[in-house]
Amino acid sequence: MMIVMKEGASDDQIQAVVDRVESVGARAHVSRGELVTVIGAIGDREHVANLGIEGFPGVDHMVPILKPYKLASAQFKKGERTVVEIDGRKIGGQHFMMIAGPCTVESREVMLETAHVVKDAGAQLLRGGAYKPRTSPYSFQGLGEAGLRLLQEAKEETGLPVVTELMDVRDLERVLEVADVIQLGARNMQNYTLLTEVGRAGVPVLLKRGLSATIEELLMAAEYVLKEGNEQVLLCERGIRTFEPSYRFTLDLLAVPVLKELSHLPVVIDPSHAAGRRDWVLPMSLAAAAAGADGIIVEIHPQPEKAICDGPQAVRNEEFADYVRKVEQAAALAGKELARV
Amino acid sequence: MMIVMKEGASDDQIQAVVDRVESVGARAHVSRGELVTVIGAIGDREHVANLGIEGFPGVDHMVPILKPYKLASAQFKKGERTVVEIDGRKIGGQHFMMIAGPCTVESREVMLETAHVVKDAGAQLLRGGAYKPRTSPYSFQGLGEAGLRLLQEAKEETGLPVVTELMDVRDLERVLEVADVIQLGARNMQNYTLLTEVGRAGVPVLLKRGLSATIEELLMAAEYVLKEGNEQVLLCERGIRTFEPSYRFTLDLLAVPVLKELSHLPVVIDPSHAAGRRDWVLPMSLAAAAAGADGIIVEIHPQPEKAICDGPQAVRNEEFADYVRKVEQAAALAGKELARV
Amino acid sequence: MMIVMKEGASDDQIQAVVDRVESVGARAHVSRGELVTVIGAIGDREHVANLGIEGFPGVDHMVPILKPYKLASAQFKKGERTVVEIDGRKIGGQHFMMIAGPCTVESREVMLETAHVVKDAGAQLLRGGAYKPRTSPYSFQGLGEAGLRLLQEAKEETGLPVVTELMDVRDLERVLEVADVIQLGARNMQNYTLLTEVGRAGVPVLLKRGLSATIEELLMAAEYVLKEGNEQVLLCERGIRTFEPSYRFTLDLLAVPVLKELSHLPVVIDPSHAAGRRDWVLPMSLAAAAAGADGIIVEIHPQPEKAICDGPQAVRNEEFADYVRKVEQAAALAGKELARV
Amino acid sequence: MMIVMKEGASDDQIQAVVDRVESVGARAHVSRGELVTVIGAIGDREHVANLGIEGFPGVDHMVPILKPYKLASAQFKKGERTVVEIDGRKIGGQHFMMIAGPCTVESREVMLETAHVVKDAGAQLLRGGAYKPRTSPYSFQGLGEAGLRLLQEAKEETGLPVVTELMDVRDLERVLEVADVIQLGARNMQNYTLLTEVGRAGVPVLLKRGLSATIEELLMAAEYVLKEGNEQVLLCERGIRTFEPSYRFTLDLLAVPVLKELSHLPVVIDPSHAAGRRDWVLPMSLAAAAAGADGIIVEIHPQPEKAICDGPQAVRNEEFADYVRKVEQAAALAGKELARV
Repeated sequence: MMIVMKEGASDDQIQAVVDRVESVGARAHVSRGELVTVIGAIGDREHVANLGIEGFPGVDHMVPILKPYKLASAQFKKGERTVVEIDGRKIGGQHFMMIAGPCTVESREVMLETAHVVKDAGAQLLRGGAYKPRTSPYSFQGLGEAGLRLLQEAKEETGLPVVTELMDVRDLERVLEVADVIQLGARNMQNYTLLTEVGRAGVPVLLKRGLSATIEELLMAAEYVLKEGNEQVLLCERGIRTFEPSYRFTLDLLAVPVLKELSHLPVVIDPSHAAGRRDWVLPMSLAAAAAGADGIIVEIHPQPEKAICDGPQAVRNEEFADYVRKVEQAAALAGKELARV
Repeated sequence: MMIVMKEGASDDQIQAVVDRVESVGARAHVSRGELVTVIGAIGDREHVANLGIEGFPGVDHMVPILKPYKLASAQFKKGERTVVEIDGRKIGGQHFMMIAGPCTVESREVMLETAHVVKDAGAQLLRGGAYKPRTSPYSFQGLGEAGLRLLQEAKEETGLPVVTELMDVRDLERVLEVADVIQLGARNMQNYTLLTEVGRAGVPVLLKRGLSATIEELLMAAEYVLKEGNEQVLLCERGIRTFEPSYRFTLDLLAVPVLKELSHLPVVIDPSHAAGRRDWVLPMSLAAAAAGADGIIVEIHPQPEKAICDGPQAVRNEEFADYVRKVEQAAALAGKELARV
Repeated sequence: MMIVMKEGASDDQIQAVVDRVESVGARAHVSRGELVTVIGAIGDREHVANLGIEGFPGVDHMVPILKPYKLASAQFKKGERTVVEIDGRKIGGQHFMMIAGPCTVESREVMLETAHVVKDAGAQLLRGGAYKPRTSPYSFQGLGEAGLRLLQEAKEETGLPVVTELMDVRDLERVLEVADVIQLGARNMQNYTLLTEVGRAGVPVLLKRGLSATIEELLMAAEYVLKEGNEQVLLCERGIRTFEPSYRFTLDLLAVPVLKELSHLPVVIDPSHAAGRRDWVLPMSLAAAAAGADGIIVEIHPQPEKAICDGPQAVRNEEFADYVRKVEQAAALAGKELARV
Repeated sequence: MMIVMKEGASDDQIQAVVDRVESVGARAHVSRGELVTVIGAIGDREHVANLGIEGFPGVDHMVPILKPYKLASAQFKKGERTVVEIDGRKIGGQHFMMIAGPCTVESREVMLETAHVVKDAGAQLLRGGAYKPRTSPYSFQGLGEAGLRLLQEAKEETGLPVVTELMDVRDLERVLEVADVIQLGARNMQNYTLLTEVGRAGVPVLLKRGLSATIEELLMAAEYVLKEGNEQVLLCERGIRTFEPSYRFTLDLLAVPVLKELSHLPVVIDPSHAAGRRDWVLPMSLAAAAAGADGIIVEIHPQPEKAICDGPQAVRNEEFADYVRKVEQAAALAGKELARV
């Protein structure tokens, strides 16, 4: 931590800061510049982070020097990239993964038909929501347990592993019976109860970035899971909130190279929720793959016009195989391969 | 819902939309303009909201006409304002409420000393966090049950009702034993599990706006609580996330008159977390009260330099009585009175 | 324009709105729904846009139905795409254009060496700033006229057309002597004086989106140029301002398909300023091309460590040919071809 | 400037940075921490700011220590506050100034009637736009020179000094004939040509913060004016662009105490453009004054329903005297006095 003093800070004020730094067992390094004095506090990360010096007289501001996450950092694995394996399917490193399925599990017919489309197109993981976080209490909230049973059936029929969202910690056991990967949605990125419990469960986690979460905060949320000994975290960018009203969210593709520099964890892009429109999903998927994403999670549907939820953004089942082929080419530009099972 | 067709949309495309609208039992109203055709869909709010017409050929975009919340809307109470009463203390209408206390419950001594300061200055509600949502898993997470016990003791000593945060639905019973008002933090504004359960518990709720939640989304979150039959919701603006790095969050005081026009619920401002600095808390508190807020929740501490959490933003206990007196004057400008108990 | 009345608006209030609409020669279309009444105002676009009805009693809000731009809209050219031709080089439709050069013209040696690199790699347009908009008055403000002369020399040596920025309307003549394309920077996107004058000059314009300009505002800015009879406008996304501090700006690649749906004008991406880091420029360039951009403008330099301005984001001259080859492959995925001259 | 090295940076990499720092005549201060090394670069502000070290191998990031503005900083005047005097009216320090008038100069009648209302209510400065920056080229662009003449007439009739906007540097002479204060609008905050020329003109400047300008960028823009020897700059916050769609802009009142801490210049709030609605202008004006603003600039109109521009946000002339009286009370809470002339 660097503590920047105000211009004209007195020697007493500087000494008070030094004393405080040393009081937590850290060392203080004083650099007197022509205009301002800067004090480096060197020592245990947590102690130094909690010095509470901001309000001291003569202190202008504090500058953190170390990243606040450890286990999620690229340094922690010395440059090695984490490859998560889900029932034999790999994501991370040179392995690109395609995840697809309906937004919400809405009927047996749609679920099974779509699962076969996912499998036949060569995608590796099946998605579908049984519990749906909805802005309005009057919107369809998902089929719940009945939805989980349909996911189970689709999994048995196709052999595809399944990713589904967990919203309520009290549903954890039930969801774990079906899910190969647990999704934590954008609204729950900082739901520390869920993060800790899925961390303990030891199951792979697809962690969506919150609408206004910084990249650092996403990594801190991942750190909650990693800290419980669960390293299987997929970071997912799904669009951030900005001033632009032409689409639902601003897809932040710069997050791909940034996250891959800062962390060893795989990065997945969800192009559907940001675009909100089928036409814009393919260009954004190609862009994501070309930018170096490790995977894409996309919504598809046999008849989007009749979908209960988010139909306008669903790629049509009949166009999915072609979509996968194109994304595969874009991923190849970034040196990645879609592993056919 | 108004459905705006593209320029040059064909009669068949228009008819397809009309058919879809009528298929859910709503009526379709077609207005043909010189350039574009607009179709009004009139009928049950939820049916109309879920038409899924966005992807239809020839459709340009949809414009919702009705607000998506009902119980939280000003219309619902026909202009009457909700007054929430907490152990005899009122907030809403002409009643201004001052809520204060330490950020986190950290020790018996700090808690009790501060509780007396809160009471003596004429504030009506005591705040203090036993469970703390923290960005870092390595930060202090609150005293938990021990913290609840200290809050209970402070309450008994001073007679002040207590507001404290609930993070994990499994702690609800425990928190309810102490809390007169349950706080749902910004990160949990869209934690629908918590919203529903505190709605059912029937206890007053202080609902903080999410960092990037729109005013409409805040009201939709309140609607989750109201829908369970619990009308005692205090809406709390605590700063939104913007591009500006000079302070922690941008305090959105325009939300005060906007919320009061859209909803009958009381509006509380938390100036501490946005400012992040003691010096800026008083001007923002005066501004909030002058803008017509129904209450302020502020952090205070006997020795901010030694606070475990957020010390730099805490008003000093010794300055609190003077702070209350000034805020009271600003509230008076907006026609509100701080009820001395 | 649709005028949405409040719930419970009176007949008199509705009539007052109808009267106002008709007073400007437009027709009013009243739809009475179960809860609210909506009034369509149909007539001349500008008259209707300036009704000033928002403050009328009983009016809830207004919803514009027509896009506020005409000449820039896709409808205006009935789906045909504008191809801009710059000294024989095409951009738009299936033509992809690579624009490159140093951030600022800093020396004869750097300028000429880089111009040859640009040409040899197969890029079509040379960039270089003689007048530089700088946040600080103490930063290097560009070589001015001397810079223009160096650009002229580079152009003569290589035969490459040149794009350079205009900041002061009083420099227009001078800049036009050298520039084949005039760049209007992000800070000047709404400098209506410049927009109008470059519109009149009839020269191709590279119009950068403002840091917080919506897509609609960008198109309105283009409309200022088009309105003067100049159709040669290249729209350039260069990163928008958001809350994320990990990079300089958030590159908004969703703007690519959105702009191409809304407008017939070519879309160029500038990946350098958003990334701010050389390592992130290539992935973002691949993403932009794969998303369907019509061109890329990128900064390169022989020795970025010694660049006067923005060195950290400059691609090295020696890596540029390889960079172009990769971007070409990404553009091919979107059905575009880099025209070798 | 502090240069933070990556974990594991080699001695050679550290030495390369030290060499670069010393090559511009600055001194390098190396602090080796347990995990990372930090190098302080101490010397001439500008040299140090342009080291271009970001891309050096082993460098993680750079942290500026000094503020990039000098003349605008509070330190520059050692805590003394600048009081700007406009024809005998003062703003800054304990002097609060009320500035009012129509959005645009639209007719002789409206202008003169409103000018008298402004004067009679005790406001000190008359506003009115002759040149109007408009998003759409089809909107009313102001009366231009005819508008300036009407402002002149209003000024002569009432004795009120006048503030009006300058958009085109070629209009400077003409505007200076009438204007006592020149307004630079939000879209022109970084129009360096205008900033420099009004700096040279030596006339008081009302500088509006850009929609997405940081507080630091606003102060840098002011620095452009100050650098020309013109210290009479009024900083004006008028709403920033955020994700919230309920109002036009988010009024950033935290900017008031922050600007007053960072700078000696007076701070003015424009509540009209952010609110966009008459009802919300008074609460925001009270809030601004209570927060410690040095002045308010507000739009008023005799018949807002007939205003050419921005009628819905104009306070009615007939309500203005009462408005001023209330704002005066709020300013008094912050220790300021509205100087009656």
